[in-house]
Amino acid sequence: MKINLPETGQERVVIVGGGFAGLTLARKLAKSNFQVVMIDKNNYHQFQPLFYQVAMAGLEPSSIVFPLRKLFQKKKNVFIRICELERVNPEAKQIETSFGVVNYDYLVLAMGVDTNFFGNEELAEKTLPMKSVSEALYLRNRILTDYEIALTIPDYEARQSYIDIVIVGGGPTGVEVAGALAEMKHYVIPKDYLELNQREIDIYLIQGGSRLLPGMSESAGANALKFLEKLNVKVKLNTRVVAFDGEKVTMKDGSSIPTKKVIWAAGIKANPVAGLSEECRVWGNRLKVNRYNQIDGLEQVFAIGDIAYMEEESFPQGHPQVAQVAMQQAKHLAKNLKNRSIGRPMKPFHYKDLGSMATIGRNKAVCDLPRIKFKGFPAWLVWLFVHLFQILGVKNRLFIFINWLWNYITYDQYLRLIIRPDERHRSAEVKPSTTE
Amino acid sequence: MKINLPETGQERVVIVGGGFAGLTLARKLAKSNFQVVMIDKNNYHQFQPLFYQVAMAGLEPSSIVFPLRKLFQKKKNVFIRICELERVNPEAKQIETSFGVVNYDYLVLAMGVDTNFFGNEELAEKTLPMKSVSEALYLRNRILTDYEIALTIPDYEARQSYIDIVIVGGGPTGVEVAGALAEMKHYVIPKDYLELNQREIDIYLIQGGSRLLPGMSESAGANALKFLEKLNVKVKLNTRVVAFDGEKVTMKDGSSIPTKKVIWAAGIKANPVAGLSEECRVWGNRLKVNRYNQIDGLEQVFAIGDIAYMEEESFPQGHPQVAQVAMQQAKHLAKNLKNRSIGRPMKPFHYKDLGSMATIGRNKAVCDLPRIKFKGFPAWLVWLFVHLFQILGVKNRLFIFINWLWNYITYDQYLRLIIRPDERHRSAEVKPSTTE
Repeated sequence: MKINLPETGQERVVIVGGGFAGLTLARKLAKSNFQVVMIDKNNYHQFQPLFYQVAMAGLEPSSIVFPLRKLFQKKKNVFIRICELERVNPEAKQIETSFGVVNYDYLVLAMGVDTNFFGNEELAEKTLPMKSVSEALYLRNRILTDYEIALTIPDYEARQSYIDIVIVGGGPTGVEVAGALAEMKHYVIPKDYLELNQREIDIYLIQGGSRLLPGMSESAGANALKFLEKLNVKVKLNTRVVAFDGEKVTMKDGSSIPTKKVIWAAGIKANPVAGLSEECRVWGNRLKVNRYNQIDGLEQVFAIGDIAYMEEESFPQGHPQVAQVAMQQAKHLAKNLKNRSIGRPMKPFHYKDLGSMATIGRNKAVCDLPRIKFKGFPAWLVWLFVHLFQILGVKNRLFIFINWLWNYITYDQYLRLIIRPDERHRSAEVKPSTTE
Repeated sequence: MKINLPETGQERVVIVGGGFAGLTLARKLAKSNFQVVMIDKNNYHQFQPLFYQVAMAGLEPSSIVFPLRKLFQKKKNVFIRICELERVNPEAKQIETSFGVVNYDYLVLAMGVDTNFFGNEELAEKTLPMKSVSEALYLRNRILTDYEIALTIPDYEARQSYIDIVIVGGGPTGVEVAGALAEMKHYVIPKDYLELNQREIDIYLIQGGSRLLPGMSESAGANALKFLEKLNVKVKLNTRVVAFDGEKVTMKDGSSIPTKKVIWAAGIKANPVAGLSEECRVWGNRLKVNRYNQIDGLEQVFAIGDIAYMEEESFPQGHPQVAQVAMQQAKHLAKNLKNRSIGRPMKPFHYKDLGSMATIGRNKAVCDLPRIKFKGFPAWLVWLFVHLFQILGVKNRLFIFINWLWNYITYDQYLRLIIRPDERHRSAEVKPSTTE
């Protein structure tokens, strides 16, 4: 059955995914001559860079997610459908969703990427990923819950696996989580859990490669390492995790650490799209696109953001999977689509690297900008403001700013709440009407 | 197995429940000569009067709940255990919890009350209660989700059951939810759901009795009714709901309304406590206590708040089950316990009614104060400030105030997010260590 959408005679651009890429594109095409249909399984945009602060009880989910409808309130050419993409059918210029079929003139795939467990079922099932705000919230609940349990365990050995945490992956997420956990240990535990001895708590960061933050400069990686060691995080480089049975995590070299919590930030991969040929898929399930973000051989199907793989002179292995690329590709595609619709030629995409940064904790961050690299307090301030201004919504910005100021002054995260979903929650899903 | 608690030689007061009653008592006994053990299944205190604003996407859960540990951070004589009461064993002066056994010198039962479905399994299973912040959040998700689904249904009839809402119960909760939903319909739907016709949305309030707000004055009830009718809420008095199959709700008189959402605010009852004799249970499972909040025949077992039933001259049917009674009983019991411990006699409890109020919407509320009854904008302001100052935590107060101001100015609720729990959430519960 066809999804209920007005036929306005406008060319229809269907955008799948409301992340940095999809959202930026939709906003650029709002009030254009296209009919824009935005499809996402959530009714909100998620600000991924701050997931770790939700997990560490520093921010509320609502401060880092933004309702899509709110964003397009007065945009009469934008239609939002909260459903899941099931299959692409390029011949018929249709997609199949959990709500039904949608025709398109242009299809833009911007579903981003998911956690990569490299085919290890056990890791996928037992470790804690952090690629959605729900996963971040769940992680928060697990950490706090385990502290509560640890209190009730008199035996030292038995207690450790509840309070020690292992983080796998030395990229920005892993580094930021490790730093935040270390600060929780130093500043919060002694206040909230008098009965726990914070010195007993060990935080491990396991990195397969020989350095941290491989996406950034050598010096940034080295400084992140220094910062983390200052916070007593036990960083293990050149170490690969091969198994986690829920009780202990085992490394390739046979060594192991007893813990009930392994945070998995070691890799990402796209979810394969049904209906597209194998040829267009490259490593990590990314979709190979030309310089116009077109999928080879499919004139009217585009891919942007983390899910897209584009080679250009300065990026022979493709672009890094970061928000900057996603937003630049989205803006560029918006221009190209508008040009195309009035018969103008499309222009090839060029990525302009604006630099990257990561924060490790209070006054501790590293920044690589095109001209200058710096660290410490100035880098931390830059990090704060860059992220504050990327956040959607004045009110979100205000609340996050107050939260950060508050936490900074009080050395405290305020939101240590284990709010468990009501049992019935499970059934709360957007399903198409059954009466149809 | 015994729960892990320090034996300090102090007399131990075990408080079950961190609601208005239990929390107030624990705070009064903090820094006393008692060892206080607070037991709750959640690690936070919930501010019930504002649940409906969470459900209506006006406030974040985190603004109306407060972490227990944060509250007792520097109180060395207070010990918190996040577990469930399973059984009381007065002979042994012990309780059994999901964490193990706890001995007490004084036991204070303050578990409050739960939703009463009057034994109707179908209603219990299919309607939406609102007695916890999780239930409120779930209700929010359901309302927003059904709007999303309604968009996809071209057929008028089929659409109605997704957008019409029936509220059962004409007490403060029912009235406040009805008012908030009506305002969401008027101010939010036209902005967020251009594709929905707000005139199609019907909100019903079903009340068994002949008036609204039976706990308040005649005039308050009449004014609430006027306000709700002004907001186009369809109020049905003297009407009893007998069945809801998930598709339509049926009244005693045989009439019915097709809807997928029935909010149940029609009654409360306590959960029976295993180990206590039948004799001490009265209507609504309340525990009969004497003027010292002692359960008959059990010198050292007390009950306070909604779960307690005490008759005094001016309240021959017992006190109303409201926060005021709970907090006054808690303060009084704290004094009595302190007196008792130094051999002084306990004093009988007297309830001082400070009045009651309910809000229906923007600038619409009703106040019954001991000397004066008033309504409208002044009542609404009083309601706002009374609730604002009852909220725990300066930061919560600040955030709620900003939220209210914001929503008032923008005619908007900001938090229309369907944040569904991660699948794994289900397993996130505080269970005692299995290694023990």
